[in-house]
Amino acid sequence: MSINTFGHLFRVTTWGESHGPALGATVDGCPPGVPVTPEMLQHWLDKRKPGQSKHTTQRQEADLVRILSGVYEGKTTGTPIQLMIENTDQRSKDYGDIAETFRPGHADITYHQKYGNRDPRGGGRSSARETAARVAAGGVAREAIKALVPHVEIRGYMVQMGEMHIDRSRFDWDAIDQNDFWIPDAGAVEDWDAYLGKIRKSKNSVGAVVEVVARGVPAGIGAPVYGKLDTDLAAAMMSINAVKGVEIGEGMAAAALKGTDNADEIFMGPDGPEYSSNHSGGILGGISTGQDLVVRFAVKPTSSILTPRRSIRKDGTPIEVVTKGRHDPCVGIRAVPVGEAMMACVILDHLLLHRGQVGENQGKIG
Amino acid sequence: MSINTFGHLFRVTTWGESHGPALGATVDGCPPGVPVTPEMLQHWLDKRKPGQSKHTTQRQEADLVRILSGVYEGKTTGTPIQLMIENTDQRSKDYGDIAETFRPGHADITYHQKYGNRDPRGGGRSSARETAARVAAGGVAREAIKALVPHVEIRGYMVQMGEMHIDRSRFDWDAIDQNDFWIPDAGAVEDWDAYLGKIRKSKNSVGAVVEVVARGVPAGIGAPVYGKLDTDLAAAMMSINAVKGVEIGEGMAAAALKGTDNADEIFMGPDGPEYSSNHSGGILGGISTGQDLVVRFAVKPTSSILTPRRSIRKDGTPIEVVTKGRHDPCVGIRAVPVGEAMMACVILDHLLLHRGQVGENQGKIG
Amino acid sequence: MSINTFGHLFRVTTWGESHGPALGATVDGCPPGVPVTPEMLQHWLDKRKPGQSKHTTQRQEADLVRILSGVYEGKTTGTPIQLMIENTDQRSKDYGDIAETFRPGHADITYHQKYGNRDPRGGGRSSARETAARVAAGGVAREAIKALVPHVEIRGYMVQMGEMHIDRSRFDWDAIDQNDFWIPDAGAVEDWDAYLGKIRKSKNSVGAVVEVVARGVPAGIGAPVYGKLDTDLAAAMMSINAVKGVEIGEGMAAAALKGTDNADEIFMGPDGPEYSSNHSGGILGGISTGQDLVVRFAVKPTSSILTPRRSIRKDGTPIEVVTKGRHDPCVGIRAVPVGEAMMACVILDHLLLHRGQVGENQGKIG
Amino acid sequence: MSINTFGHLFRVTTWGESHGPALGATVDGCPPGVPVTPEMLQHWLDKRKPGQSKHTTQRQEADLVRILSGVYEGKTTGTPIQLMIENTDQRSKDYGDIAETFRPGHADITYHQKYGNRDPRGGGRSSARETAARVAAGGVAREAIKALVPHVEIRGYMVQMGEMHIDRSRFDWDAIDQNDFWIPDAGAVEDWDAYLGKIRKSKNSVGAVVEVVARGVPAGIGAPVYGKLDTDLAAAMMSINAVKGVEIGEGMAAAALKGTDNADEIFMGPDGPEYSSNHSGGILGGISTGQDLVVRFAVKPTSSILTPRRSIRKDGTPIEVVTKGRHDPCVGIRAVPVGEAMMACVILDHLLLHRGQVGENQGKIG
Repeated sequence: MSINTFGHLFRVTTWGESHGPALGATVDGCPPGVPVTPEMLQHWLDKRKPGQSKHTTQRQEADLVRILSGVYEGKTTGTPIQLMIENTDQRSKDYGDIAETFRPGHADITYHQKYGNRDPRGGGRSSARETAARVAAGGVAREAIKALVPHVEIRGYMVQMGEMHIDRSRFDWDAIDQNDFWIPDAGAVEDWDAYLGKIRKSKNSVGAVVEVVARGVPAGIGAPVYGKLDTDLAAAMMSINAVKGVEIGEGMAAAALKGTDNADEIFMGPDGPEYSSNHSGGILGGISTGQDLVVRFAVKPTSSILTPRRSIRKDGTPIEVVTKGRHDPCVGIRAVPVGEAMMACVILDHLLLHRGQVGENQGKIG
Repeated sequence: MSINTFGHLFRVTTWGESHGPALGATVDGCPPGVPVTPEMLQHWLDKRKPGQSKHTTQRQEADLVRILSGVYEGKTTGTPIQLMIENTDQRSKDYGDIAETFRPGHADITYHQKYGNRDPRGGGRSSARETAARVAAGGVAREAIKALVPHVEIRGYMVQMGEMHIDRSRFDWDAIDQNDFWIPDAGAVEDWDAYLGKIRKSKNSVGAVVEVVARGVPAGIGAPVYGKLDTDLAAAMMSINAVKGVEIGEGMAAAALKGTDNADEIFMGPDGPEYSSNHSGGILGGISTGQDLVVRFAVKPTSSILTPRRSIRKDGTPIEVVTKGRHDPCVGIRAVPVGEAMMACVILDHLLLHRGQVGENQGKIG
Repeated sequence: MSINTFGHLFRVTTWGESHGPALGATVDGCPPGVPVTPEMLQHWLDKRKPGQSKHTTQRQEADLVRILSGVYEGKTTGTPIQLMIENTDQRSKDYGDIAETFRPGHADITYHQKYGNRDPRGGGRSSARETAARVAAGGVAREAIKALVPHVEIRGYMVQMGEMHIDRSRFDWDAIDQNDFWIPDAGAVEDWDAYLGKIRKSKNSVGAVVEVVARGVPAGIGAPVYGKLDTDLAAAMMSINAVKGVEIGEGMAAAALKGTDNADEIFMGPDGPEYSSNHSGGILGGISTGQDLVVRFAVKPTSSILTPRRSIRKDGTPIEVVTKGRHDPCVGIRAVPVGEAMMACVILDHLLLHRGQVGENQGKIG
Repeated sequence: MSINTFGHLFRVTTWGESHGPALGATVDGCPPGVPVTPEMLQHWLDKRKPGQSKHTTQRQEADLVRILSGVYEGKTTGTPIQLMIENTDQRSKDYGDIAETFRPGHADITYHQKYGNRDPRGGGRSSARETAARVAAGGVAREAIKALVPHVEIRGYMVQMGEMHIDRSRFDWDAIDQNDFWIPDAGAVEDWDAYLGKIRKSKNSVGAVVEVVARGVPAGIGAPVYGKLDTDLAAAMMSINAVKGVEIGEGMAAAALKGTDNADEIFMGPDGPEYSSNHSGGILGGISTGQDLVVRFAVKPTSSILTPRRSIRKDGTPIEVVTKGRHDPCVGIRAVPVGEAMMACVILDHLLLHRGQVGENQGKIG
């Protein structure tokens, strides 16, 4: 039970600092025989890559992933898969002065209090750059899921950015990949763009809510009582940098509902049980119902802003911190592929656990 | 990495079904020499016990905890502590017909789909009765925390029940233990009582939000990147029955904030760093800041209601389900001591992990 | 990764002290639908029970196992199985003076040095009595193996006791259950009996070697590099009280062999690969070959003897320790069913892991 | 609980194949502030490096280790340490024909049966080359131990090679590093050399026994019942390629001893308890006594020999296998630094666990 490792059977250990020579993921427990190539993983890394729009950090990183082990002739062998991404843009001079300073809202101060010795360059281990390794590992998970359950689809998108909310009545899956915000509403893109431009110009940043949906996940995966599917999804999403809240299905709004409103009534359909609604987000008692898995998480506004904030130095003396360089005014945008990757890892892990614990769906209905 | 076990070094495995002979918790990793008696644990179990007010289930359970191992002459020995609670009120006749039926919103259907063979009596393993074992284990954790860090205080309370919200301007710590709702506002109790009475009379139920705060937790506990303090708290709370959302500090509301609003500015105080605010909920980069740890979770409305809901039987035929017997119209109330217990377990676990990985706070400030 | 827990997916946590109210095993990860009754488990516990022959301790323990959870209507449900054995013969007066004294060869001194607070009654947690819980858990594992792979047979027997060795040329499976020593040679029983009688009369004790064989285990279970089948078997056997050495196949004798002698040549048989010999003990590269799994372990002579030994008290003053009461002159005898139980747990665990990681044998031969 | 990971708190995951681009170790849980440089690790890797004497494989590998993360300005940061060794000598043509053939005594056949898809080049994941990563990780462990407990010394040496045994009456610590066999007896080197030369010329190989001793380990580390120090040492050593037996203290010979002979009597010395002998190998009840930790393991003879052995191809047809290229006639020699590395990892892990679970030695004596 290691602190930089995630998962029960499909286990991902990420390693690396923002400005060290490289970062990556050690992926253990992937089934053998799964087709995996660097190109397959690069596809997802390119989604997360910085410097793609005016709204993301201008750091230039190719984020090229290399597979150092565990794959032979284009297929996994069942042994650990080492995924390495070399850091090419290590302009640590931009960050030099933070070695003695604690940026408000950052982990500088708590890492110092815990470890004493930290790599201050670019936030070191606490940098969101760590999530590149997750995205690469998530790419492996996606391929392995495909080999086990053919029709699972995992999609993330933004549903809120500061004051902007999506209009669910205009929800359009096809729009998501067509805009810089991953929003399912082409008509709203211009407004979101203007809003975020204003935020950036005012030297500020803003929070966001990302929703991730998985379709086609079979009923019966998950496990009581602490290895629940929702427990593991909550942990997965909360482990992403800057995330402050996680919701399954109705989420926090469930508190305002009555039992009569919240009940997903059950009917017998041609292929098994069907539900009148999906307040549960596809999970009952920690186990999947076969409906869409629906998870949302809130990302706080970027702490690195151009507006001065008061803080202290290591020696306790006061200082005003102004972040230099370019930072994402809304880190939530680049959290979309990260949320998808975590969803993929959790689903694969529970598919494997289910096989290990049960072998196959045991209880038939109808 | 077991599915009914929670924690890294302080590991709690709960076992038992709602209407089996007994349930309990196997607690491994508690430091030796901690004073623990059945009375200490009973104090917290009595808080969670059903049948204490008109708003909780009338099931009569003494919920008496026995310590079968790991404690010698009133002190822990460092070996596994077995906590057993015998089920005395096993009126399984109330539940008999559900063996063939899936109650909407319950885990009946997913347990069937995963395992095939389930104990249907009272919900079996998926019953909220399992949380009694957590509360007992949390009692052990509280004593061990006390032995390590003297002044930690862990308090839970309700902040929302359906349409009712607490008024934070009237927040009163002393009121919490004085009312059936664990709300920090004596003046609101009458309204909440009337509201819930109305819900119950209308054969309905309602959701809730519980907040748990821990004061006095030292800075520097927690760990990157998947063993974060917030990750483990999110998992702990999401693992409680009926929980659908978890928030740390600002939680989901962080999405609407700007970077300037969300920053907790840092000052040097007489005893170390101090913060202008606590939007972070006491956690930065997964590590404690020394401020109050603030966690909230939403509990969905009880699925067992007297209003008929449509569902199916095992054989796929339709049925209308009406829950017989008395059930809590708001399970959120009894989730308060459970949330506290989980908070205690996570804090102890990270205090121990911190010792194991670091030994002591390394980085001094000022 | 808990210290009183064993296994990856089939996880056994034992708890309890020699003279506490009860001891037992919390068994998590057992597949659902496996027939398990108290009688099935009692069969194995009766094999290990003390007081059955003149060569085992005269402590009278019924060692009755109760199943408190995880089994419904005679079949496992997939949820944790709690197995409890109450201690009925708690004559702690026999042991009273050892609270202040360290018996040579016992864990009294090291438990004191580690924990400070220990239960001295009957050795507390370090007593071989803990192995009763393992035997109960092993009974569950045997039934689950049967449900997954029909023809696995697990048999343990003694191959050495002090100066006595079995004669492998007279090996007789049927003899094993017919004598007090579990030896596969009816003709040798009288000699072994006389030898041990002499040891006991001379107020002494003697060591032993136990061999455990599993037949019918399919090829392909196990896993590189630290979850190897032999690694887990070595850990399982070394975790048994008083064990000082573990061997797989040729074991320590492999050191004296040449490569030409040690090679198990491979042939194609009617049902798959066959081997000319089994020097490997059924394991290559940590993965089963389909041959018999062969494990041996050495048990040191009982440290509790009637001959005085020099030691110290807690306060450092010297003392001569003479063990009162009746103790097994050869604890190796009762280690036979314990070794079998551990073998069963490891095999089940790896059968489940194999399903979780691979699903089925992937590589066909021929 | 991952299958390529070893350790509880100090967790080492090795990755990489014999002839892939690189191999390495992901090391999580190392305390911060420990001085670690590539040079420190290279020192131990050079000990294990092939091609150093006529008795080891002539494969030319620089085995240069790079530290990719977790170390900043020469000190560990507490975050994962990635150690990478690039494979420079990838002459896979020597191994090409084994893709369709199973070498007797090798894991070729079992990997095929488990995974279907394996990297056949040089044995892939099952190659002893994997142990280079362990040696690098062991170097980190040694430095961390030094930071926690100053005077621990870990030394390995051969005690047997085929028919050759060391003469313990001539034991000389200083001789160990002065000869190709790591034997503590300079006078025996010539004989061992001649013996192994003869073995090699006869196109054969031979087994060995390696002993590893740790001095200065404090009393009180280790843990009941499955996380015992001896359990973890047995697992650590058995996980090394080709190891078939593990002994602690007296080991298998304990079976022949009487209780009177095996007892290590206890005396009070000036600095705490002392023992009349060390039959226990420094461990009682799974916890260290403060005496020397003594572990031995047997390594089977190299399976790759120039003498033809009968085997089958994937398609089941018979074949005679003769290993081409140069292989170590006694792999036990190069297992010496590997055994030391595993000992270092286990000791560090238990030092950390002890802090996490207890904090400090609790029970004083005298």
